[in-house]
Amino acid sequence: MTDARPTIRLQRGADARLRRGHPWVFSNEVAMTAEAKAIAPGTIVRVEAEGGGKGGEPLCCAYFNPHSLIALRRLDDDADRTIDAGFLAERLATALGWRERLFDAPYYRLVHAEADGLPGLVVDRFGDVVVAQANTAGMERLEPALLEALGQVLDPAAVVLRNDTSVRGLEGLPSEVRLAAGTVPASPTVAEGGALFPLDPLGGQKTGWFFDHRDNRAFVARLAAGARVLDLYCHTGGFGVQCAVAGAARVDLVDRAAPALQIAARAAELSGVADRVTTRKADAFAALEHLIKTGESYDVVVCDPPAFAKSKKDVGGAARAYRKLARLAAQVTAPDGVLLLASCSFHMDPASFAQQTARGVGESGRTARILRRAGAGPDHPIHPQLPESAYLKCEVMALD
Amino acid sequence: MTDARPTIRLQRGADARLRRGHPWVFSNEVAMTAEAKAIAPGTIVRVEAEGGGKGGEPLCCAYFNPHSLIALRRLDDDADRTIDAGFLAERLATALGWRERLFDAPYYRLVHAEADGLPGLVVDRFGDVVVAQANTAGMERLEPALLEALGQVLDPAAVVLRNDTSVRGLEGLPSEVRLAAGTVPASPTVAEGGALFPLDPLGGQKTGWFFDHRDNRAFVARLAAGARVLDLYCHTGGFGVQCAVAGAARVDLVDRAAPALQIAARAAELSGVADRVTTRKADAFAALEHLIKTGESYDVVVCDPPAFAKSKKDVGGAARAYRKLARLAAQVTAPDGVLLLASCSFHMDPASFAQQTARGVGESGRTARILRRAGAGPDHPIHPQLPESAYLKCEVMALD
Repeated sequence: MTDARPTIRLQRGADARLRRGHPWVFSNEVAMTAEAKAIAPGTIVRVEAEGGGKGGEPLCCAYFNPHSLIALRRLDDDADRTIDAGFLAERLATALGWRERLFDAPYYRLVHAEADGLPGLVVDRFGDVVVAQANTAGMERLEPALLEALGQVLDPAAVVLRNDTSVRGLEGLPSEVRLAAGTVPASPTVAEGGALFPLDPLGGQKTGWFFDHRDNRAFVARLAAGARVLDLYCHTGGFGVQCAVAGAARVDLVDRAAPALQIAARAAELSGVADRVTTRKADAFAALEHLIKTGESYDVVVCDPPAFAKSKKDVGGAARAYRKLARLAAQVTAPDGVLLLASCSFHMDPASFAQQTARGVGESGRTARILRRAGAGPDHPIHPQLPESAYLKCEVMALD
Repeated sequence: MTDARPTIRLQRGADARLRRGHPWVFSNEVAMTAEAKAIAPGTIVRVEAEGGGKGGEPLCCAYFNPHSLIALRRLDDDADRTIDAGFLAERLATALGWRERLFDAPYYRLVHAEADGLPGLVVDRFGDVVVAQANTAGMERLEPALLEALGQVLDPAAVVLRNDTSVRGLEGLPSEVRLAAGTVPASPTVAEGGALFPLDPLGGQKTGWFFDHRDNRAFVARLAAGARVLDLYCHTGGFGVQCAVAGAARVDLVDRAAPALQIAARAAELSGVADRVTTRKADAFAALEHLIKTGESYDVVVCDPPAFAKSKKDVGGAARAYRKLARLAAQVTAPDGVLLLASCSFHMDPASFAQQTARGVGESGRTARILRRAGAGPDHPIHPQLPESAYLKCEVMALD
């Protein structure tokens, strides 16, 4: 097997970051020969240091995409390691071991890409149903081995491939969603904080549920007893419906997407709180400006927008948008109220996000104390060498 | 009252930060006239903008110390607000309200200085016993009013003034510890995570207990079932004893301070886990180097050192020390083990701390995933305009 594995040589000095544990090599750090350029995207290769004309030192094995900015993603420190279902099963078992130590029920992000030693792969587990995303050509080529490994480690009732992320475009991959193995049970749900949410692994958005905010939802729900709650960008109602279950007097869910609101309304029914939950199809900024005009306020306001910064060049505009959102949301937060502001843009670093939210709230004239500053839960581990893997920022403020 | 209140005028432009909500004015931003210089440290003053020769706009009331780098600390936006027991009781009641929403039992940091609108004041609550620290001349002068306000809001059995912090020196204040009101009950304790810790509010270190790591201790204890645990810089055993209660097979507590170790041993007894807990008086670096030599390893390693950076000029050395500590601690962490690294130096910013720990662990040759990146618990709120109030950094890593 390894005889057939091509070798990619790095540019001089480009090995230093890899040796420190970083999992990526960029395309300009690779000796991009005609042979290298001709390698099919996603091929597994041996990676060697430059070596001064002689044979270079082997550094790792990785998968390679000559057409991607991130040309190499490390799979293993052994350049000749066989990458097959057995390898993937080993990585999956390690990832599973940590989740089983951290969670009581089998509902979590099982694989968080590079941080779990499986670059380009995301796997969410909903009991017997597994939803996977292969975000790179390398991981796409490993799909048969991955399905075999998932069968070995989890024996799931269904594996859904949710390969409709925008990042796949950067790797030249098509968008598709399909059932790759088994059968999705009728009406699957995810339980959290005493609430029940319908899952739609083949439809809906991303893998159908955002596990990352689990601890942030629990924190806010604890503060919601008796409260009027506004959940902006509510998606399927993760924050708001849990607040209702925790005793909120009234919860208004706002989102631009009608299908998400339908699932949210169904979640409120399943959770026995439909009488206290309303849904409204609206843009969050427009909804806030309307509320400010009418003088309405809420004891708990949740703002968890989609990524405002989709790329580095969007950061300036995104910063202004987060700041404006903070200002408007603070204006509709009642005295002694709670305001949650989140960002999932990995281009927006934590310090800048904190600065923008502080400025926005300051401009509203409100005094704030930050009760909680947190990222994603522990099923979304951070890769120590990839600060961008700490993509989620969440601030929960008490406003005077 | 307000007739007698002196006015401090700011330098031109120095009002902008105050208007954004920042609570401090530095001494070089104040019109430091002979009259201003003669004001007794800690006096409450009206603060005015520069105003171009005419009377300046009133900005706030603050207490003033002409001899401190932080010359003014804002008390209220109303420049003529009466600052008395009633004012302090109002701020205490707001702070208490948030803690009562967040915690089931009356054990928490009740006042976290500027973030709770009471600059220079720290109050920890242990049920009926209240331990306060006045870290500024302004707060020192408010002591009689503070004692009255604490009586009104909490009616505690005892108030201990733990005025022995090093920062008091910057304000020209002496070091002292004394019982200011009531009587400390015999053998007070604090309960956390199923463990019991003896409190010594009149002796010991700081206010006797570090509430800030509460959630981090709970997180690690959850991962400690069956584990061999090493708790470095253990102080009174907060992490280690809770790990033992959570089912750790063996816990080794290490600290340089014999009195802290005695309390830790007593905590293990009170918590019914003395048979699985040992204490050792040693420097953490020396202990780690010895363990590396003897090849011993632990499933859970906790490193929560005192601040390595006591001032800005220490940051470089502190960074190297955190990095070395991460490297050594990773070397004694068993395969599939857990490593907690923390820093309470507010001079060390979160991104730099994360970078140093990542480098240190990388240098040990271990692969890590960061399961938790967190600060202090919600009873240590962050002031949005004071990034340094987010002083605590904690990383919990899973090592392969």
